[in-house]
Parts: sequence; C-alpha cells; structure tokens
Amino acid sequence: MIVCKFGGTSLADIEQIKKVAAIVRGNPERKFIVVSAPGKRSSEDKKITDLLLIASNQDKKLEDRLEALRVFGSRFSDIVAGLDVPVDVPHFVSEIERMIEKMAYADAIVSRGEYLMAKILAAHLDFPFVDAVSFVRFDEHGRYSETRTALEAFNKIRFFDRAVIPGFYGADGRGVIHTFPRGGSDLTGAIVAQFVEAKLYENWTDANGVYAVDPRIIADAPTIQRLSYKELRELTYSGATVFHEEAMFPVMKAGIPIHVRNTHEPENIGTLVSPSENVADADDSHPVTGIAGRKDFLVLAIEKMQMNSEVGYVRRIASVLERHRISFEHMPSGIDSVSIIIEVAKIRTDGRKVGELVAHLVKDLQEDCNPDSIQTFENIALVSTVGKAMRSTPGIAARLFGALARERINVRLIIQGSSEISIIIGVLNSDYEAAIRAIYKEFFS
Amino acid sequence: MIVCKFGGTSLADIEQIKKVAAIVRGNPERKFIVVSAPGKRSSEDKKITDLLLIASNQDKKLEDRLEALRVFGSRFSDIVAGLDVPVDVPHFVSEIERMIEKMAYADAIVSRGEYLMAKILAAHLDFPFVDAVSFVRFDEHGRYSETRTALEAFNKIRFFDRAVIPGFYGADGRGVIHTFPRGGSDLTGAIVAQFVEAKLYENWTDANGVYAVDPRIIADAPTIQRLSYKELRELTYSGATVFHEEAMFPVMKAGIPIHVRNTHEPENIGTLVSPSENVADADDSHPVTGIAGRKDFLVLAIEKMQMNSEVGYVRRIASVLERHRISFEHMPSGIDSVSIIIEVAKIRTDGRKVGELVAHLVKDLQEDCNPDSIQTFENIALVSTVGKAMRSTPGIAARLFGALARERINVRLIIQGSSEISIIIGVLNSDYEAAIRAIYKEFFS
Repeated sequence: MIVCKFGGTSLADIEQIKKVAAIVRGNPERKFIVVSAPGKRSSEDKKITDLLLIASNQDKKLEDRLEALRVFGSRFSDIVAGLDVPVDVPHFVSEIERMIEKMAYADAIVSRGEYLMAKILAAHLDFPFVDAVSFVRFDEHGRYSETRTALEAFNKIRFFDRAVIPGFYGADGRGVIHTFPRGGSDLTGAIVAQFVEAKLYENWTDANGVYAVDPRIIADAPTIQRLSYKELRELTYSGATVFHEEAMFPVMKAGIPIHVRNTHEPENIGTLVSPSENVADADDSHPVTGIAGRKDFLVLAIEKMQMNSEVGYVRRIASVLERHRISFEHMPSGIDSVSIIIEVAKIRTDGRKVGELVAHLVKDLQEDCNPDSIQTFENIALVSTVGKAMRSTPGIAARLFGALARERINVRLIIQGSSEISIIIGVLNSDYEAAIRAIYKEFFS
Repeated sequence: MIVCKFGGTSLADIEQIKKVAAIVRGNPERKFIVVSAPGKRSSEDKKITDLLLIASNQDKKLEDRLEALRVFGSRFSDIVAGLDVPVDVPHFVSEIERMIEKMAYADAIVSRGEYLMAKILAAHLDFPFVDAVSFVRFDEHGRYSETRTALEAFNKIRFFDRAVIPGFYGADGRGVIHTFPRGGSDLTGAIVAQFVEAKLYENWTDANGVYAVDPRIIADAPTIQRLSYKELRELTYSGATVFHEEAMFPVMKAGIPIHVRNTHEPENIGTLVSPSENVADADDSHPVTGIAGRKDFLVLAIEKMQMNSEVGYVRRIASVLERHRISFEHMPSGIDSVSIIIEVAKIRTDGRKVGELVAHLVKDLQEDCNPDSIQTFENIALVSTVGKAMRSTPGIAARLFGALARERINVRLIIQGSSEISIIIGVLNSDYEAAIRAIYKEFFS
C-alpha cells in the first residue's frame, strides 16, 4: 500500500487536480492521499494558504481579510464547478466568515485550505474523507505528539482501507487545531505512511525529484535518482529545500522508502530515497550524490594553550553556550584551539541585536573558560559535499580541494568526522556560489 | 643576555664538555647555562640519569644499585680528571651511598646527575654554581609553581650576572626535591630565561634543529630554519620530539625566541623559533613548515538524529567524558553525528583494561545521551600538516589530499578549524608512515 502526498502546485487548478486523480487511479496501491492547499497557478498568483493567513490576521483591516476570503471562495468555486463535485463552497466560506467574526485563532482558519481541498479530492476520487484532527495529535503546548497520534491512528485511520486526508494540521486533545510549520503536509504524509505501515511514501511535487545542487546556482541542475535517508538528511540539513526536513523522521523511523515525483511528469523516474546505506548501490563514477550549503554562519575561534590536557574544557565551553541557549552546528578543533560554528539565523534574539548577544557570549566564555584569545569570524558559508560512496572512494577530498584551489577559493575550515558521508567546508559568504559551482563542475560535468 | 641549555649528549664526555665550554665562551652574552646530566657516549652506553634511576630504585637489589652508583662515579671521575677541575667525586658518591642507605626518596637521588654536572661545568667555566633548589619551586603536591618560582627567582638568581644551573629539578617549600618529567632540563632552561628576562633561549642539542618530519620515517629529513611558537607547538604536540613540549610555555609567555642548535655543529644555523606569526616570514614556495603525527587514537562516532537542534547535546557528551576523566583531542562533527577522538595512551587506566574502560564509557554515553548509535574505530593515526602560510595560500588542501589519493591512502577524518595553521587528517595506523611520506614528497621534494 502506498501513501501519496500532493503538494500545492500539484493541486493549483482543475487541470492539475485531474492529473492527480489520474495518478491515484493509475495504481490501485495508492490508497491514502494527503493533500496541501492549492498553490500558485502562476508567479503572480497567491497560494490559498497565504490568502488564509491574511483572512486570519487580526492586525489587518477587516475589509482586506474578507477580500482575501472572497478570492479563496472564488478559486475553490471554480475548482468545484470544473470537477463537478457536490461540495458547497459558499456555505464553507460563510462558516469561515463566522470564524473571523468570532475572532477565531489563526490556526483554525489557516488550516481550511487543506481541509476543503481534501474534501473536494475525496469527492472527485470517491474516496472517504478523513479529517487530520481525528488522529494527528498535538500536545497542549502545540507540539506534535507521536505517542498520542499512534494511539488515535490505531483507533481511527486503520479502519479505513483508503482515504483522502488534509495535510499541514492536527488537533490537541480538546479539539483545538494546530498547524505544522510551513511545508508540514510532507510531515502529515509521513505520519500517515508510518501508521498505516505503507510500503512506500510517494511525495508528489513540481520537480523531478531532489536536486543534486541548488538550481538557483546551477541552472541545469540534475536530480538524483537514488539516495539514502542519510544522504537526503545531509542535503536537506545543509540547505537543499525540496523536502520539509522533519518530514523524513516518521518514515525513516519506520524504514519506509520515499519516492519524490513530479505531478507534471509522472513518467519521470523521480528520486527514490531508501533506508539502504549500502554503498554497492552507489555509482562509482559519481561518488558525490549532491552538494548543498547555507550562508551566514558565525565562527568563534577560541585559543587556549594546552586546552586538550584540561579534562572538561570543551564541557565548560559547551555549558556557556547552553546557558545562552545557543545551539551550534560544529566544533572543529586544532591544537590548543576550538572553533564554534553558529548559524546566525538560529540565534534566538528575542528582539535584541545579534552583535550584542554574541558580545555577551564572548564575555561569558572569557570569564568561565579563561582562553588565551577569542576571535569572531562572520559571514562564513558552509558547503557540504555528500555521497555515501565517499567513505570508500579515495581521492574525493583531493578532487574537492583541487577544484576549489583552481578557482582560488580560500577554504576557511574543513570538517569530516569518522563515519561521515560528507565533507563540510567553510568559505566566505562571498565565495559561496563560486565554491558550489567549482565542486559541481568537478563531480558532475 | 642569552640563556643556554645543553642536553645530555652535549655533555656526554670530556670532548663534548670542552665544545660546550667553547660555545659558552664564544659569546659573552651567554651568561646563564642550564645543564642536563651526561647522556650516552654510544648507543650501548647508559645515561647518567638511567644509572641513578637504578640506584634510587628500592625494588632493585642493593648490589645492583651500588654497581650503578659505581659506574656513575667512574664516569664523573673521568670527566673531572680530564677537565682538571676541583670537584671531589668520591665524596659525592659516598653521599649518595648514604642517601641509599637512609632510603632517601627517588627524586633526591635521580637529580644528582644534573647537580654534579652543573658543579663541574661551573668550575670549568669559572662561573658561579646556583642550585635549582634555591629558586625552581614546586608545591606540596609536586607540581611546578610558577608564582613561587617567580618570587624565589627574584630573590635569588637575579643577584647573579652569570651562573651554571642544574636542570630537571627543583624543590618545594620544605626543601624536598622534585623532578620534572624526562627532558625537563628544557623546562628549567625556559624558566631561567623567563625570570632573568633573556633576549634569547639557546637550546643546544645533538641535532641541527627541529626536523620538518620524523627522521625515522624520512631518512634525510631536513630541519626547519625558522618557525613560529605556534608552529612549533603544533609540531611537538603532534609528535615531533626534539623539544620537551611544556618547556616552551615559560619562554612563550615571555615572548623570548628559542634557538635550537647543534653542539656538534655550532656553525649550523639551527632552528629559530620566534613569537612572530607574521606570514611574511614564510616562504611562499614552502607553505608547509613541517609534518608530525601520532598513532593509536580511538574514535567514538556518535550518531543522533537532529543532534544539533538539541541545545546542550555536546555538553552532555562532554560531561560524560569528564566524569570518566577522559580527555579527548578533537570532536569533529557532521550532520547528526559527532566523533570523539581519544588518544589511547592518555586514558588513565589505573590498572584496568582500555577495552573495559571504553565499554563502560560507551554504556554511559548511551544512557546519558541516548544516541541512535555509537561506533568505535580503533587504530587511527593523526597526521598534522603545519604551516603558518597555509591560511593564506589557497590550494594546500588540494595538494595534500591529492598526494594522499595518489598513494591510495584512505582519509578517515579531516579537521581544520577556522584560525588554524594546520590540517589534521586521520588515517589507519597501518597507513601512517605512507601518509607522512606522501605529504612530505608533495611539499618538500
């Protein structure tokens, strides 16, 4: 049995939805269908969820909120008319209007795009509709609860042999609706796949799979046909954006392969992500699976003579960071020195300036750890070159650094742990794109 | 003013001692002379200190101890006779005999080689003799105390305009003698240089300076003419053995250059170690200053999904290591993984087996940190390629990894922090020598 998740652009208009229906009908194994709200039909268009974000925003003028709701209703009315399904959109819109009048909390309103889309697709496919609130459980703090979901899923969804389910949201024990972060329909799909024990999780998008490199940097970026969970995790963590990062965890836990496919080109082979770390799968002529990265890291370089002979020195540094609630990405060390690599976007500023927070952190590190020096390096980008065959293929590092050297790119730091399937390098933000192009050229041209 | 330290082979026999005297007299700035005990005259010979280690060892048979003392006396008698200095060796030997009878503690006896050598050289040079017990201070736990030494040095040694001083030992406040670890005369020399505010610390050995690479691996290993404190520190830390590691700290603190020279070839330029990290000093055609390394590291590879998003995860790992009193050298990380690199020789076993201690550590890491997996990799060697010009010279990493790839050496881990002047790689112990040869060939041939 296969769980399919269709993203917003796959459901943006009648033609797309008909393609989706054809895909579902094309394989009787496709029994559980998770949907996003309709996305943009063109680059000027608005996503349904963005309209609902306006409609639910109590800081906006009421007329703007109602206008957004009107556009919402008009788009869904067109869809319902085109598909000829018995769904009463005007009634549904007036229900949301009442929610707005009653000052309903935002999540309840924002979730209505997925809800209505699932209703419509269920009617069109003649599948049962199962609301996500009936089994996707959040705790009272609004955090997804796997344990409670497992219980509800067992009681509810397992009695259905097929269903269309809205993505993106669930509810707590009192029935209050909570949404996942944007892109969360991927997660709903993975949760469904986990609890119906699917043999495959198909994630239908508007791309031919997971790109080997950011297509904004490499115009004709290829997609990857096969990769392992771990490779996907490294690529998404490092910046590849096709897949909502946390969405993998439920299926990874269950060992279910993920097939990323293109609704517009269902004949394309897509990207198959499997649990196997078996290097035999890898193509020797392409030891690098993909390249990803992110800009804007901050590096604190701490020097202290004989640091390593002091048991507990790194623990003291880590304790100061923990007290400041700063998570760090890496901690490469030299002799008598250690670098703390912090992603600037992950620093919780609570309205204060990053510079002040870092200055405060440095001051505390100086007091608690008494280093010989602390230097701060800003504007560092990390680039991760990923491939499970890298471990067993000598010479990857040589090619990687050779490619960077030929482009005169100065590598500021290098990290590769012992069980790693990637080499992470640090370069200046300004060298980021050039570094990715150089690595791409070396391994993919 | 220059402080000179002469090592054991520089003082092994009359001819050597005459060379030393000529060197001291060759420059009137050489005012404070620190000596080791005489070393081996040939490879079959015994060092004076090794004889005293036997003589002081209460587990040995008394006749063997007295025989070692007899050889000790005979060697010094020859020296005194050859130099024609008024030192009463038989009287001195009978004093040590009484120490043995009175079950004196070992350090008191072991230190007598340096003591007597300093007496003899002082007489030969007609310099005052100043005993190290008068200013090199240990605390009651037998640890060197810089603060107390500063005070005593100020009261004592600064009243002399020149002196010969025995290396290797000092005393606590009650006059009880303590020795430094083997090679500690380097440290005594550095302490003297620090407190007499020398402009230069000359360390006279039996080599033409600091080797760029281990001469046991590269037969015609060159020496380095100039290097920075930090480069020397990286090389000695990573395994280069010319210099007792901690011996640098007093002179580094004081910013005094170290000149490593060869007693047998005083005309050789030797190695000048200076505080300057100025890259302009470096030779662009030789961006790598030296290569060093050590075998027998243990790597614990810890994997945990979303490790980096857990504030405090590394702190928890570091706390477990601290509780086990295990110091680690590096902690390179990937996505969802971190490797702990531990030098096996530094694990304090207290009679237990390393394997058991590591198993216990892994068990505690599992309980406290709840990782997805922990793998142990043994027999890892670290090789450090050092050069202060590396930071500013693109392409070093490319050449380094290219050289390793051509020799089909699999690089298991890579570490280079952001302010580093070295790249550290991990290879299998069995690839250690081949890795060093490959890197040497690339950068020095």
